Amino acid sequence: MLEQLKEEVFQANLELPKHGLVKFTWGNVSAIDRESGLFVIKPSGVSYDVMKASDMVVVDLDGNVVEGEMRPSSDTATHAVLYKHYSEIGGIVHTHSTWATIWAQAGLDVPVMGTTHADTFYGAVPCARFLNQDEVDRGYEAETGRVIIETFEQRGIDVMAVPAVLLHGHAPFTWGKDAKSAVVNSVVLEEVCKMNLYARQLNNFAKELPQGILDKHYLRKHGKDAYYGQK
Amino acid sequence: MLEQLKEEVFQANLELPKHGLVKFTWGNVSAIDRESGLFVIKPSGVSYDVMKASDMVVVDLDGNVVEGEMRPSSDTATHAVLYKHYSEIGGIVHTHSTWATIWAQAGLDVPVMGTTHADTFYGAVPCARFLNQDEVDRGYEAETGRVIIETFEQRGIDVMAVPAVLLHGHAPFTWGKDAKSAVVNSVVLEEVCKMNLYARQLNNFAKELPQGILDKHYLRKHGKDAYYGQK
Amino acid sequence: MLEQLKEEVFQANLELPKHGLVKFTWGNVSAIDRESGLFVIKPSGVSYDVMKASDMVVVDLDGNVVEGEMRPSSDTATHAVLYKHYSEIGGIVHTHSTWATIWAQAGLDVPVMGTTHADTFYGAVPCARFLNQDEVDRGYEAETGRVIIETFEQRGIDVMAVPAVLLHGHAPFTWGKDAKSAVVNSVVLEEVCKMNLYARQLNNFAKELPQGILDKHYLRKHGKDAYYGQK
Amino acid sequence: MLEQLKEEVFQANLELPKHGLVKFTWGNVSAIDRESGLFVIKPSGVSYDVMKASDMVVVDLDGNVVEGEMRPSSDTATHAVLYKHYSEIGGIVHTHSTWATIWAQAGLDVPVMGTTHADTFYGAVPCARFLNQDEVDRGYEAETGRVIIETFEQRGIDVMAVPAVLLHGHAPFTWGKDAKSAVVNSVVLEEVCKMNLYARQLNNFAKELPQGILDKHYLRKHGKDAYYGQK
Repeated sequence: MLEQLKEEVFQANLELPKHGLVKFTWGNVSAIDRESGLFVIKPSGVSYDVMKASDMVVVDLDGNVVEGEMRPSSDTATHAVLYKHYSEIGGIVHTHSTWATIWAQAGLDVPVMGTTHADTFYGAVPCARFLNQDEVDRGYEAETGRVIIETFEQRGIDVMAVPAVLLHGHAPFTWGKDAKSAVVNSVVLEEVCKMNLYARQLNNFAKELPQGILDKHYLRKHGKDAYYGQK
Repeated sequence: MLEQLKEEVFQANLELPKHGLVKFTWGNVSAIDRESGLFVIKPSGVSYDVMKASDMVVVDLDGNVVEGEMRPSSDTATHAVLYKHYSEIGGIVHTHSTWATIWAQAGLDVPVMGTTHADTFYGAVPCARFLNQDEVDRGYEAETGRVIIETFEQRGIDVMAVPAVLLHGHAPFTWGKDAKSAVVNSVVLEEVCKMNLYARQLNNFAKELPQGILDKHYLRKHGKDAYYGQK
Repeated sequence: MLEQLKEEVFQANLELPKHGLVKFTWGNVSAIDRESGLFVIKPSGVSYDVMKASDMVVVDLDGNVVEGEMRPSSDTATHAVLYKHYSEIGGIVHTHSTWATIWAQAGLDVPVMGTTHADTFYGAVPCARFLNQDEVDRGYEAETGRVIIETFEQRGIDVMAVPAVLLHGHAPFTWGKDAKSAVVNSVVLEEVCKMNLYARQLNNFAKELPQGILDKHYLRKHGKDAYYGQK
Repeated sequence: MLEQLKEEVFQANLELPKHGLVKFTWGNVSAIDRESGLFVIKPSGVSYDVMKASDMVVVDLDGNVVEGEMRPSSDTATHAVLYKHYSEIGGIVHTHSTWATIWAQAGLDVPVMGTTHADTFYGAVPCARFLNQDEVDRGYEAETGRVIIETFEQRGIDVMAVPAVLLHGHAPFTWGKDAKSAVVNSVVLEEVCKMNLYARQLNNFAKELPQGILDKHYLRKHGKDAYYGQK
């Protein structure tokens, strides 16, 4: 069942330690098959060293396990809520990568301070609010997904133009058209968070990138007039 | 004698350089066999490259060598005091890992600023006071253990819920139910110390994690209602 | 066509990930054959893992592809403008290396704070201004090259004595007599940017290097009286 | 001639890139044979990849090459001056290692803020003054050695108890009883410089290590009553 997607999700999970984004079993990647409405996700707490493609768990959009011997990631409900609400999302990544988590703990949006950011994210990466006690009690993981949606809707941010969020006091989620691009977005977010922290320390008055340069860099890589990369 | 425990302690010691927690021969791991009341510890100043499982030293709870050709770690008395006082502790790690040592040198408790911390430590990691001259003269290593105990007792901290301490001007000790989990706690402490330092630098007014989210994250991984990982 | 130069440019491109200066396909190296007036550059968005020497693209000084199956780097026009204006330049590197990009995002020149800087750069590395909207619209990449030239001319900096520039909000360009030396200059710039940021943080009043020591270090490695290295 | 010493110096030089203390050909290690009054040093500007033990250069205490096809390190005169003045020194290392160079650029002594420092250096590591123009003109490298001596003599520091110095605006020198221990001291200095910078950033009022703990840690590793390591 969904063997190719399992392989893709498995490979994408292995990219996390390779890029230094996770320690131990922290972090999880999933990807969805829109035709069947099922998604594939890493099992909970399994070491990357021993994990196999066949350990990936198949889950429906209500978070019920459809196939697999193992428990899915404890964050499965967050993935499910995002896939259900945003039909454009094909893959999701959650990590506690160092620099993005630092911004999440600081409770700050990541401003656009350079073209490294603009090449991937078309605007500031928002930091979502803390969950309140009611939300924690009601279902922490699903409510985490709802707070992400609230953040993008209240601020009017296009979820595919800024495919990342920070959760205050927690860590980042990123997404993309598939698992692989969601991982790339995690790597870029991590690097941008490192650069922006130091740039701000070096110059408290450092300017954000002018809108025209942000447009130029984002649009030369994305959309119909993109000219970066091969045809 | 205690051959399996020696192998476990040996392997746990090798994890320290693998996780970047030690340079040269810095750092030591021990684990106890509660039945015999003996513990196994790394020999002093032996390079990780040439060390063998059979080099591990067997010591009693007064710090006397029971078996082994080599001198045990110079910090053996600290381990002994902790094992004697806390029957729950199965393994202990001491390192001078960079970021935890930075907090120790700063003389500050590590506050709970994120869920990475809350997943492992159920509250702030305390920084114990400097030893006074009397304590240094009386027996530096044993008194170090007593100052750790004093810190947890005076503050009413559960030693297994917060399995780590910083020693002012020195470095961290961590522990756990066995050597392996004590090493994991050292890795997490190191990462949390890095994240929290920068989060505080990025936003001097960064909030600590709300109690309800701390509870949620700690309790979904620890205790009878935990649902993280496999059954 | 220019097979040896392609091999050199290919090898120089591989040096970028090896020195930790790039992630994914970020960054590009080129080198020019002054006799034919053609230069060789990395193809756009091709992974370093699969790239071959034969994938290198041959381009003329107006940025037209002369040979090659692939699109050249999206930054090709910047390279072309620099080669055209400065006949001394033999190789050019563009990266988003972390520490140099941090200074670029801060919008600051990199002052000479130590001999590590002075061994390679004979003065502060300038930070060029943001491009204005007209320039972005007219041709972002070519105008980037023109702003670099403007920076060196307005300030009267010898382009071979200070073979590096930061672009405000973007990242560094470095150059040299060939591709290899341009890469070396990128590595040095990255290290100097890291050192200088922290030195300034450690001591806000840290002094710049006295001119006499700057002269000594630069001139013992460069020019006719150099005595560093082998004859 | 001095084949064993050449091998030792060669191996010690290879430790520098292994410990991340140098880039390219930066850095050099030497060691002296006190009987013949000759020392062996790395050749200037030779890559660590291709360097052989037989490339090491034999030099006398006036800095004259006694044996070897290659030019010795451009810093040879600094080594010679130190060996001549301090008969206890057996090996010397010079690097531009990142964190020690940051303190050198900041122009600050490295205070004793923790036991990691106290285990190796029995007091603050001094930062020597800038050379003045006369000294630069007279002979930069030899005068560098003289400024190091001046620093230790004016402050009454025992050169073997604090086997390291920072040169303002330049970088560190360390030494020891032989090449290997001089390299160890470089590694420790680098780590201590990193820790102390951040400890000071984290807590501007962080206290220096009490003298009694400094004594304890230094003396349990050095001198006749040391009990660290194996007999």
